[in-house]
Amino acid sequence: MSVERILDARLRDRVVSAEHAAALIQPGETVAMSGFTGSGYPKAVPMALARQIEQAHQQGQPFQIKLLTGASTAPELDGALAKADGIAMRMPFQSDPDARKRINDGMLDYIDIHLSHVAQHVWFGLYGQIDTAVIEVSAIREDGALVPSTSVGNNKTWLDLARKVIIEVNDWQPAGVDGMHDIYYGTALPPQRRPIPLVQGNDRIGETALRCDPDKIVAVVRTHGPDRNSPFTPIDATSEQIAGHLIAFLQHEVARGRLPANLLPLQSGVGNIPNAVLAGLAKSGLRGLSAFTEVIQDGMLELLKSGVLDYASCTGFALSPDANEEFKRNIDFYRRRIIMRTQEISNHPELVRRLGCIGMNGMIETDLYGNVNSTHVMGSRIMNGIGGSGDFARNGFLSTFLSPSTAKNGTISSIVPMVSHVDHTEHDVSIIVTEQGLADLRGLPPRARARAVIDHCAHPDFRDLLDDYFQRACRDSYGKHTPHLLPEALSWHQRWLDTGSMKP
Amino acid sequence: MSVERILDARLRDRVVSAEHAAALIQPGETVAMSGFTGSGYPKAVPMALARQIEQAHQQGQPFQIKLLTGASTAPELDGALAKADGIAMRMPFQSDPDARKRINDGMLDYIDIHLSHVAQHVWFGLYGQIDTAVIEVSAIREDGALVPSTSVGNNKTWLDLARKVIIEVNDWQPAGVDGMHDIYYGTALPPQRRPIPLVQGNDRIGETALRCDPDKIVAVVRTHGPDRNSPFTPIDATSEQIAGHLIAFLQHEVARGRLPANLLPLQSGVGNIPNAVLAGLAKSGLRGLSAFTEVIQDGMLELLKSGVLDYASCTGFALSPDANEEFKRNIDFYRRRIIMRTQEISNHPELVRRLGCIGMNGMIETDLYGNVNSTHVMGSRIMNGIGGSGDFARNGFLSTFLSPSTAKNGTISSIVPMVSHVDHTEHDVSIIVTEQGLADLRGLPPRARARAVIDHCAHPDFRDLLDDYFQRACRDSYGKHTPHLLPEALSWHQRWLDTGSMKP
Repeated sequence: MSVERILDARLRDRVVSAEHAAALIQPGETVAMSGFTGSGYPKAVPMALARQIEQAHQQGQPFQIKLLTGASTAPELDGALAKADGIAMRMPFQSDPDARKRINDGMLDYIDIHLSHVAQHVWFGLYGQIDTAVIEVSAIREDGALVPSTSVGNNKTWLDLARKVIIEVNDWQPAGVDGMHDIYYGTALPPQRRPIPLVQGNDRIGETALRCDPDKIVAVVRTHGPDRNSPFTPIDATSEQIAGHLIAFLQHEVARGRLPANLLPLQSGVGNIPNAVLAGLAKSGLRGLSAFTEVIQDGMLELLKSGVLDYASCTGFALSPDANEEFKRNIDFYRRRIIMRTQEISNHPELVRRLGCIGMNGMIETDLYGNVNSTHVMGSRIMNGIGGSGDFARNGFLSTFLSPSTAKNGTISSIVPMVSHVDHTEHDVSIIVTEQGLADLRGLPPRARARAVIDHCAHPDFRDLLDDYFQRACRDSYGKHTPHLLPEALSWHQRWLDTGSMKP
Repeated sequence: MSVERILDARLRDRVVSAEHAAALIQPGETVAMSGFTGSGYPKAVPMALARQIEQAHQQGQPFQIKLLTGASTAPELDGALAKADGIAMRMPFQSDPDARKRINDGMLDYIDIHLSHVAQHVWFGLYGQIDTAVIEVSAIREDGALVPSTSVGNNKTWLDLARKVIIEVNDWQPAGVDGMHDIYYGTALPPQRRPIPLVQGNDRIGETALRCDPDKIVAVVRTHGPDRNSPFTPIDATSEQIAGHLIAFLQHEVARGRLPANLLPLQSGVGNIPNAVLAGLAKSGLRGLSAFTEVIQDGMLELLKSGVLDYASCTGFALSPDANEEFKRNIDFYRRRIIMRTQEISNHPELVRRLGCIGMNGMIETDLYGNVNSTHVMGSRIMNGIGGSGDFARNGFLSTFLSPSTAKNGTISSIVPMVSHVDHTEHDVSIIVTEQGLADLRGLPPRARARAVIDHCAHPDFRDLLDDYFQRACRDSYGKHTPHLLPEALSWHQRWLDTGSMKP
C-alpha cells in the first residue's frame, strides 16, 4: 500500500478524476502548467484536457488555450495538446516534435524568451490573467503546503497568480524529495526589489514547499506516472572530442591562475555533448566542483556520487530510467547535495554574475565573428528555443558554445559566414568549441575572432570556403571592422535549402 | 589666484610637464585612461604622447599603444592618438571620426563590449597587464585620496591594476564636485562576490574619492581645460514626435497600473532624441522621477532644476557649454541630487534588474522581428559601439529603442527585413519607436511583432515594401515561425551600397 500523500484533509476532500479537473478549464483560458525539461509536469490533466478539446472540435466548437510552463514537457502535455490543436500560444520553451511542426507551419504562436524573464514578465502583466494553474507535486503537507516534485520551474509564480489551481499529486515521485527544494519568497516588482541573499550556489534562502491559498485549489488529482524517459545514449566520439577540448582549456585556465582549482559553478545544457563534458570532468582529476544550473542529467548524478561535484543547484531533472532508479534509491544522499529552486532564481542574472558561472551550451551555428544562433534552422525554422542559454552567456564568467562542426551528414557547416539568426551576439560569446578544436574569442577584435574560429573550429570540408569568404570580405567589404559580403553572407543557407548541401 | 588642488605634499613634489609625463609611456604599453562621453578625460598627456608618437614615427620607429578608457573621449585623446597612428587596439567604446575611419579601414583593432563587462574582463586578465593609467581628477586630498572630476568610468579599476599612474589635476573642473562621487570598493572576483547593497538608485554605498597607492604615482600634471564641448542642438520635429510617442506610452502604462506614477529609474542614451524625451518629460506632468543612467546631459540638469527629477545616478556628463556653466554655478544644488559611480555599478546587471530601469537607447536599424542593430552601418562598418545599451536592454524593466524611421535623406529605412548586424536580439527588445509611432512587442510572437513594427514604425515610403516582403516570407519561407526569404533578407542594404538608396 502506498502511503497517503495528501495530508491536508480539506484538500483530500477535493480529489477528483483528471477528466473532472480538466473540465474546469474553459476555451480561451491562459493555463500555466508545471514542468521543466520533461520533469515534474502534470501527467493526467493535460491528456484529459486534450481529449475534451478533441471532442469539442469534433462538435465544431473552437477550443484552444494559451499554455505557459517552466520549459519543455513531454508527449503527454505538449504533444497531446498540440496534436489536439489545443494550443493557440505557447511560452517560453518547448521541444516537442508535434508542437514544433505546428509552430513552423505557422499554426501555433510561440514566444521564445529568456527563462529568467518568464516569471517577471508574467508579473508585469504581459500575458494577462493566469486563469488556471495545473501543478504536479509530490505531496501535500498537513498545513496545505505543496511539496514540489522533480521540477520547480515557475510553479511559485503560477500558484501566486492563477485564479484557480489544479494540483496533481504524483506518488510515483519519491517521497524523499521533500526537503530538496528551496523556494525563494523574496522576489518583488520594482521598485520594491531587494538583493537576493545568495552568495554560494548551495545557500538556502527559501522554504522547502510551495504556498498556495487553499481556497483557490479547485481540484486535486492523484497520479502515478514516471517523468519523461530520457534514454541514455552512449557518448559518441565527436562529443568526447568536444568535451576534451573544453576540459583541457579549463585546466589550462586553472594553471594560468585565471580559474580556481575547483573551477566556478558549472551550468550545463542537456544532451550528448554536455553528458560527455560531465563524463570528462569525472576523469579530469578536478575536485570540489559545483553546479549552478537549470537541469541535472545523468552525468551530474554520477559526479555527485563520485564526490567530484560537491553540490548541484537546479530547477529540474532530465534523467534516464536507470539514473532515475539510482536517484530514488539514494534519495537521502542526493537530498543533501541537490537544491531545487524556482527558475527565476536558477537563472537570475544577479546570481549568475555573482557566482561567476561557467556556461556550457549547445548551438546550431556560429558565424566568423562569434555571433551564435541557438534556435533557428536556416533562419526561419525554430528548433527548440533559447531557454536559459542567454542568462548564462551574458552574465557568467565564461560563455562557451559547443557543437559538432557539421550537421546532417556533413551537409551543414556549424561555422558559417553570417548566422541566419542571432540569439547570442558577439558581445556575449567567449568560447567556441567543435570536435576540431577550441577558439578563445575573449579580448579579440572581430577579424582576429574570425581567424580563430576558422582555424580552430571549422571542419576541413568548409575551412577553405570560409577562409576564401573572409579574405574577400577583408578586401571588398564596405567596412573593414566586421568584414562581410552581403550578397553572399547567407548564401550557404540558401544553397542548403536549394541543393541539400552548403557545399558549392 | 586659483586655490591649490594638490593637498598631498608627496604628490605635489611629483608635478611635471605633460611632455615629461607622456615620456614615461613606452611603445607597446597597455594604457588605461579616464574619460566617459567626453567628460573627465585627461587633457594634456594624450596630446603630448601623440606628439612623441609622431616624432618616433618620423624617425622610423614603431610606437603604438593599446588604449582602454571608460567610453568615448574627445579630439584631444582619441582624435590625437588616432591621427598619430598611435593606437594598435582600442576598447571599449569610441565615437571619434578619425578613430572610426581607421577602424573601418582595417587599420585599428577595436573591441566593442558591454560597458558593464569592461572592468571585470580586465580583472579576469583578458587584456593583460595595465602598464600605465592616466587619470584626470579634480583634486588630491591631503591623504592622497583622488577626487574624480566629471566622469568615473573605470578609473577605480585602472588605478587598482596599473603598474604606474599618471594623474592630471584639472582645476577647470569645479572644486564643488567633491562629495558627488560614490566609489564602491566591494567588487571582487568570483567566488568572492557578494550582493551589491544598493536598493534605491540614490543609495550611497561607497566612498567619495578614489584610492591609489602613492608609490605607483609616477607623475602629476596640472591642467586647466574644459571637457569636450557638446553644442546643444535645438530639438527637431522628428525627435519631438518620437519623444511624444514614448511619453504617451509611459503615461498609458501608468494609467493601466503597470508602472508607478513616478515611473521607474530612467536610463537615457545621449543625443537629440533623448534630449527631446527629457524635454517632453519636463512638460508631461509626471513628478518624482529618477534616473539611474550612464550620462547626464542638458535635459537632465533641467529636469533636476525644475524638480521633475528627484535625483540622477550616472558615471559621466555630456553637457553643452551653457549647461556646464549652469552646473558649475549651482554645484551645491546638483551635488545633493547627482551621484557619480563607477561604470561597473552604473551599468551593473544586478542593479539594472533590481531597480527595474527604463532603458531608452538609439539604434541604427531594427528588423521586422525586433532584432536591433546599434553599431554597424550596412553590417560591416562600425559607427560607435554598443556602449551600455545592452546592459539596460537585457536587464531593465523596459527596453525601448528610438530612431527616426529613415536616415540619409530618406534613402535608408531604419526598419529592414533583416538587420545586417545584431546587437540586441528579439529576446531583449520590447518597444520600438519612430516618428511614425510605437510598436509594443512585449508578449508577442514573431509574426505579430512584424505586423506591429510595419504598421506602427515604418516610414510610408517603405511600408508597402516591408509588407510585401513579409507577406511573401509568410508564404514561401522554409519555416513560418520567423519567416524570411534569405536571398532578399539583406538585399536592401546591398541596394543602398550599389545605388545609394534602399528603394528599388
